[in-house]
Amino acid sequence: MELKDIANELVAGCREGREAENLGRLYADDAVSVEAADPMGMGRETKGIEGIRGKHDWWNNSFEVLEANVSDPYPHGDDRFAVRFTMKAKSKENGEVSDMDEIGIYHVADGKIVREEFFYGM
Amino acid sequence: MELKDIANELVAGCREGREAENLGRLYADDAVSVEAADPMGMGRETKGIEGIRGKHDWWNNSFEVLEANVSDPYPHGDDRFAVRFTMKAKSKENGEVSDMDEIGIYHVADGKIVREEFFYGM
Repeated sequence: MELKDIANELVAGCREGREAENLGRLYADDAVSVEAADPMGMGRETKGIEGIRGKHDWWNNSFEVLEANVSDPYPHGDDRFAVRFTMKAKSKENGEVSDMDEIGIYHVADGKIVREEFFYGM
Repeated sequence: MELKDIANELVAGCREGREAENLGRLYADDAVSVEAADPMGMGRETKGIEGIRGKHDWWNNSFEVLEANVSDPYPHGDDRFAVRFTMKAKSKENGEVSDMDEIGIYHVADGKIVREEFFYGM
């Protein structure tokens, strides 16, 4: 798959709730996911697709998404693209509702996403 | 200056029309600016602050900005931040009005911006 196809499919999957399926299809086995910050002291990087799947599970177990908007992809050359995510999410633990606004940068090599990096304020 | 201060000042400068002044204050002399694509075959990278100043001059000579919105910065670790720019701009050559939507990723080292990378669709 070319960058454009991967980017469009990642965005479509986020809009349609196919993130878990797309993790298997679009990501390299040794892909790395990097958070903007490390408030819990667990490190910013998660290495490997199973670790990234664990992040998705943690998110789904922790938050109920009330509203979400996923931008079209913003390409950069033939090996990266950005996506902006805005979201209203409710903590399943304490019911608190937060507005989230973040940008993901996706690196592509050999037809797979090999790295995702999230940019957001805390 | 720390990442947060540089990011806030870059954003403030873009909102207040102090881009040229900020280029001298916030950027390293050998900073690199990278476009998303290369439709004119001139290469995607511009190296050095004088080259980047030339890009600003080209932009100012080519477009009249009718509306612009510059997001708050989105940090990533202690060495990068993102900014989203949306703009309505009118070509000074043919009067055509375009809507632009792009994301800039800024890399900081030793208290200066050393690289800016623009992400956008064509």
